[in-house]
Amino acid sequence: MRIAIPIRLPNQDFEYIRPANKAREVNMAINLSFTPPDFSDEHFMKAPAATMAPSPADGIAPKDYHATSNFPEYVKLESGEWLLAPEGRMDAVLVYKDGKLKVTEARRLVKDEMVVIGRTENGEEGIFVHDACFVEAKESEDKFTFRSRGTRETPFSHSYDSLYDILKHDRDHGHIVWVLGPAVAFDKDSRTAMQGLIEHGYCHALMAGNALATHDMEAAHFSTGLGQDIYSQELQPLGHYNHLDILNAVREAGSIKKAIAQLGIKDGIMFACENKNIPYILAGSIRDDGPLPEIIRDVYQAQDAMRKHARKATTVITMATQLHSIAFGNMTPSYKVQEDGTIRPVYFYIVDMSEFSADKLANRGSSQAQAILTNVQDFIVNIWNHLSA
Amino acid sequence: MRIAIPIRLPNQDFEYIRPANKAREVNMAINLSFTPPDFSDEHFMKAPAATMAPSPADGIAPKDYHATSNFPEYVKLESGEWLLAPEGRMDAVLVYKDGKLKVTEARRLVKDEMVVIGRTENGEEGIFVHDACFVEAKESEDKFTFRSRGTRETPFSHSYDSLYDILKHDRDHGHIVWVLGPAVAFDKDSRTAMQGLIEHGYCHALMAGNALATHDMEAAHFSTGLGQDIYSQELQPLGHYNHLDILNAVREAGSIKKAIAQLGIKDGIMFACENKNIPYILAGSIRDDGPLPEIIRDVYQAQDAMRKHARKATTVITMATQLHSIAFGNMTPSYKVQEDGTIRPVYFYIVDMSEFSADKLANRGSSQAQAILTNVQDFIVNIWNHLSA
Amino acid sequence: MRIAIPIRLPNQDFEYIRPANKAREVNMAINLSFTPPDFSDEHFMKAPAATMAPSPADGIAPKDYHATSNFPEYVKLESGEWLLAPEGRMDAVLVYKDGKLKVTEARRLVKDEMVVIGRTENGEEGIFVHDACFVEAKESEDKFTFRSRGTRETPFSHSYDSLYDILKHDRDHGHIVWVLGPAVAFDKDSRTAMQGLIEHGYCHALMAGNALATHDMEAAHFSTGLGQDIYSQELQPLGHYNHLDILNAVREAGSIKKAIAQLGIKDGIMFACENKNIPYILAGSIRDDGPLPEIIRDVYQAQDAMRKHARKATTVITMATQLHSIAFGNMTPSYKVQEDGTIRPVYFYIVDMSEFSADKLANRGSSQAQAILTNVQDFIVNIWNHLSA
Amino acid sequence: MRIAIPIRLPNQDFEYIRPANKAREVNMAINLSFTPPDFSDEHFMKAPAATMAPSPADGIAPKDYHATSNFPEYVKLESGEWLLAPEGRMDAVLVYKDGKLKVTEARRLVKDEMVVIGRTENGEEGIFVHDACFVEAKESEDKFTFRSRGTRETPFSHSYDSLYDILKHDRDHGHIVWVLGPAVAFDKDSRTAMQGLIEHGYCHALMAGNALATHDMEAAHFSTGLGQDIYSQELQPLGHYNHLDILNAVREAGSIKKAIAQLGIKDGIMFACENKNIPYILAGSIRDDGPLPEIIRDVYQAQDAMRKHARKATTVITMATQLHSIAFGNMTPSYKVQEDGTIRPVYFYIVDMSEFSADKLANRGSSQAQAILTNVQDFIVNIWNHLSA
Repeated sequence: MRIAIPIRLPNQDFEYIRPANKAREVNMAINLSFTPPDFSDEHFMKAPAATMAPSPADGIAPKDYHATSNFPEYVKLESGEWLLAPEGRMDAVLVYKDGKLKVTEARRLVKDEMVVIGRTENGEEGIFVHDACFVEAKESEDKFTFRSRGTRETPFSHSYDSLYDILKHDRDHGHIVWVLGPAVAFDKDSRTAMQGLIEHGYCHALMAGNALATHDMEAAHFSTGLGQDIYSQELQPLGHYNHLDILNAVREAGSIKKAIAQLGIKDGIMFACENKNIPYILAGSIRDDGPLPEIIRDVYQAQDAMRKHARKATTVITMATQLHSIAFGNMTPSYKVQEDGTIRPVYFYIVDMSEFSADKLANRGSSQAQAILTNVQDFIVNIWNHLSA
Repeated sequence: MRIAIPIRLPNQDFEYIRPANKAREVNMAINLSFTPPDFSDEHFMKAPAATMAPSPADGIAPKDYHATSNFPEYVKLESGEWLLAPEGRMDAVLVYKDGKLKVTEARRLVKDEMVVIGRTENGEEGIFVHDACFVEAKESEDKFTFRSRGTRETPFSHSYDSLYDILKHDRDHGHIVWVLGPAVAFDKDSRTAMQGLIEHGYCHALMAGNALATHDMEAAHFSTGLGQDIYSQELQPLGHYNHLDILNAVREAGSIKKAIAQLGIKDGIMFACENKNIPYILAGSIRDDGPLPEIIRDVYQAQDAMRKHARKATTVITMATQLHSIAFGNMTPSYKVQEDGTIRPVYFYIVDMSEFSADKLANRGSSQAQAILTNVQDFIVNIWNHLSA
Repeated sequence: MRIAIPIRLPNQDFEYIRPANKAREVNMAINLSFTPPDFSDEHFMKAPAATMAPSPADGIAPKDYHATSNFPEYVKLESGEWLLAPEGRMDAVLVYKDGKLKVTEARRLVKDEMVVIGRTENGEEGIFVHDACFVEAKESEDKFTFRSRGTRETPFSHSYDSLYDILKHDRDHGHIVWVLGPAVAFDKDSRTAMQGLIEHGYCHALMAGNALATHDMEAAHFSTGLGQDIYSQELQPLGHYNHLDILNAVREAGSIKKAIAQLGIKDGIMFACENKNIPYILAGSIRDDGPLPEIIRDVYQAQDAMRKHARKATTVITMATQLHSIAFGNMTPSYKVQEDGTIRPVYFYIVDMSEFSADKLANRGSSQAQAILTNVQDFIVNIWNHLSA
Repeated sequence: MRIAIPIRLPNQDFEYIRPANKAREVNMAINLSFTPPDFSDEHFMKAPAATMAPSPADGIAPKDYHATSNFPEYVKLESGEWLLAPEGRMDAVLVYKDGKLKVTEARRLVKDEMVVIGRTENGEEGIFVHDACFVEAKESEDKFTFRSRGTRETPFSHSYDSLYDILKHDRDHGHIVWVLGPAVAFDKDSRTAMQGLIEHGYCHALMAGNALATHDMEAAHFSTGLGQDIYSQELQPLGHYNHLDILNAVREAGSIKKAIAQLGIKDGIMFACENKNIPYILAGSIRDDGPLPEIIRDVYQAQDAMRKHARKATTVITMATQLHSIAFGNMTPSYKVQEDGTIRPVYFYIVDMSEFSADKLANRGSSQAQAILTNVQDFIVNIWNHLSA
């Protein structure tokens, strides 16, 4: 049995960007179907119910707790029912309460909550990790192949085309989360492109740090980023004061929203978010100066705020930020149970210049993350040019 | 006295790409003026004539030979005249013959040719290196600045806009040389973009190696690059044979031109070059397999072939190839004496993912080279989208 | 007038490491002298006293506040005296109170504190930034040079030899701060080397994050890092639980110190710190899981804790952590006023694999930072082999 | 049946380098056993004899030729015998003549030579590629793992220890080939270390280009590399002439050997090779200036010269050269048939700063290549310190 994901994409005419073969058929990633486990299989029928044990103290997991992946995970109850965890994230625990499963970080456990026990993944202990739910791997079986690893030389035309489709779909039927490093605000065109995406509905939530928001406000007020003109590249005399002055000004105004009004700011990423009521989470880091008033200073409170969006996300795009990419990747499920009960994949794109950064997330286990290795300036301009055409 | 470069650019409406402020005034790099030295200055009047000495043997420079830069260099003759070397390149010698200067590699010297002697650059020995001929440096004099070094976070909108202008101008009034690494042929859209640029007059000569041409021919015939589909990224079963088979096929046909005809090839970079009679130089390297029949096996003969285009070049764009970038950068002047005697700058862009590669050329002395740090796939698609709009 | 830094180094026989010419004379960076400004110079005599203005609100700087660099800065008082700020850091403000200057972050200002005003640096407004206090730049004046930028191809033998001397000196006469990224704990030999350095007095304080400490404790208990054997590279079955289990165990124990006792841990970086009473600051980040009990969750409290060590530091070495390197670099002065009133340089080394990371700090203005581009595993093993020989 | 490789290593006391647990047992890569195929298996008995076809022209392979890997490959003859190709390399063809197989590049085929046909690898067409001859893969079967890809954060202690053992063994019982990029000669200590390795028998052949040899000779004569002091990092005035002058001097002397005598050179890599009669191959590239007299100008002649050493090699170490690494990797077998008929693995190490370079070779199919991601300066100093202790 296969359940089709209820996603339908119109036929499209690719008008100018990546202008190759317009009539091609795209084997779209977005059309992936979710295949649930067949729990009538003998293997599953024979499996025992999962064991549970109480948390010995607040924030402490019991011995042999099960740690979740970001795949769909099922737990067998005494009744024989296999219960799906409502959203997965990496390295959390499963709490069973009132007939339901909850995925939570160990630090958020309350003493005596019942935690699922067991470290096997194929049902042996009543836990099934359903990693192959969306795709059958079609790996080459040749003993010898070129190019089995993705690098900057991997062709990305298809990745772009898929992403265009996904963004068009999820604008109206999903929850698109952008996770931005500061570089996006350093260039005039990329900043404008990001503003356009927000204003046209392609961003339902924005995750970033103090730097991105500060650079964007500096760009709006001074046309510079850390004192360098965001168009001409010229270093302005005493330009580094622009960075400090905008921080001081926003702090004095009391909020980004008030500063936008007081300073008469009319463009940029933060402007677009405020103007369109797009929620943003600005997480603090030890690198910050200022900070802006909206920054969440306690990093675990910041995680909690980010996780609310991770759980809603249907598509995530992280750009030029290893710190925020890994943080958000860790808390994002690879699937989403939709309101009508159907299950769809969550798309996760990492856009970065360095194979190392992309590998780093892969090495943390976020295998569904797809890397596009390029300069985020070009990436975001490409995306916007296509979607605005 | 200033001599304006005879370059006039129409007002342009930037219609969609990098869609920011369309009305902006671009302080265009292309409008740089050449300022010749004022040889009536006392400093120059007092300078002695340059010394010369005969080459002691074929391919050997005399003691204390002067090595050229890629800036304009002037040599003072006994008559008092300052003679301009007709084109510069790095690390060559100056031969004086029949009232003229010739810039040549030491290995090409013939015994007893007269070589300019001296290692000073400000006239002390009759040699003047005119490094500040086009631009006065406007460097920040603050003791403290952010962002004095170019990285992937440098804003590149302006670089793109300048390059669009330069390419539009030089299509009809210059000589644009592209120096391509193999990655350009690995992606469907970037390969199509490069084909478009060639077919529409934006490429007067193409420098590459065996890999680029082979991958492009493989893409034309099999839709793969080293066996990986250039659109879908799928690894084809036994796909690595595609690479070897296309080499065998072209070798059997006897030339790329004949192979295009025999195999019925209708697209790609090599197809466009052959179709539009654009000259290409394919230089051999020890990494090659095959090779294709057109490859120049002797690397110094390859240099000689490349240098003919380096001397004609008005704009050079190198993409994703450290080897060819450095080779071509070494032999490219920073200026060009045009037919009417006026002098204009030669633009040199390095497009690469890594700061190291860009720095490497800078560290070889090619200070005029401008780096754009991004994936060449995006770069070339950006360029083509803009120019074809 | 020149004041010699009171640092004397014994003649040394380099016994085995980097075994080149043992008799060479090292032009040691550590012998740099501090040259104070000559305030009897007319330029300084004529300069006005600096203006000051009250902070308009807690955490807000007055208009036109002066932002500090990490160089020594002098402020002219009404009395004509030039007062030295006791320690510099980037992007802070100068508060004048009770005849003294205090360098503080704007966010820590209290309403009505008097803040130095002015954005010039040569005395025009009574502020002098003494950037050339230790070294006269000896830059090449050739119009053409190879290799003017530091990369992985820069020779580092001298950097190592200087660093050996500095560490030997500062072990007994300075305050050496190590800023560690997680990679240091991933390899058996590098972890052992770091332990040796701590145990033998070469580390007076350690800055890190949750990951470094967790990986180190995992290595101590399981011999793995994120489940990978730190010697054999083998991935252990269910190895990722090691990471989570050590977090849970330390959290349950209540502190790293207690966990070391309970688990019987006998080696590693955290063990050495606890055993030798070396202070460590563990700053939180949104990437953390766990976290360990010692983590400072509020990033600005973490900055405050780190800054105490930044102000004491005479040598700082950051390894494989862009986040912590930039954070600590921002708050570290380039000079230190010693107890006897003499002034010495503060050495700052960034060890990283990527030019981009090193440039990033340089682009934030920390010009005194010296990059050593290599794998931190090799770096730390080199250092320890030499110092333990 | 298993045939032990006749390699015995003495017990060793690791005295100082990477000073961790001295008593550990190393699961040494060098103790790998070769397991030949069991050709009495029904699968092989039933397999047909391989088809062969004549080469249609010089340098052209017949249709459906078989392309070799660098694994051991067996071809079934009409007699039923399975014949082992004497040495493998990537992307060559198999010629059968006089009862023997020859592995050769297609470009070296002579018309009418009999070439093995077929593109399957498991015997279906009488060809068997024996990829699992040395190691059974012990890959993790967990659905979720951290760190499945090698990066700069992979622990390298074990890699070093294995390499020490291999070098000690192969000094007397193997053929160690070093493939050097120019960076090795840029640093005093690393250059001295390489000299030491050559002089003490750890190098049986050296592969490099014009740059390495030129920089090494410049270092020997001027103590600089491209004008930068190889110890102090200082840029010498007019230092770039050192590079050109040494080229001119060696060219005038007529050979490296003569130049060493005439210039009184007493140290360095080329000196050690000449002094110890170690063969070296210097392959030309379009980036060269000079060139030195020994450079092989025709890149395919250079390949032929390099391949002679590739076929003898038992251990290969490439450092900081993507061009030469890939070239040599392509032509190096993964196994060696020794004089007594036993078969041993060939070790191949790539030492580089960038994951991209290491991946690049992996993506060309050289799966046995092991990457050590670090600065070659540290790598080579580590190796020499250990081996000379």
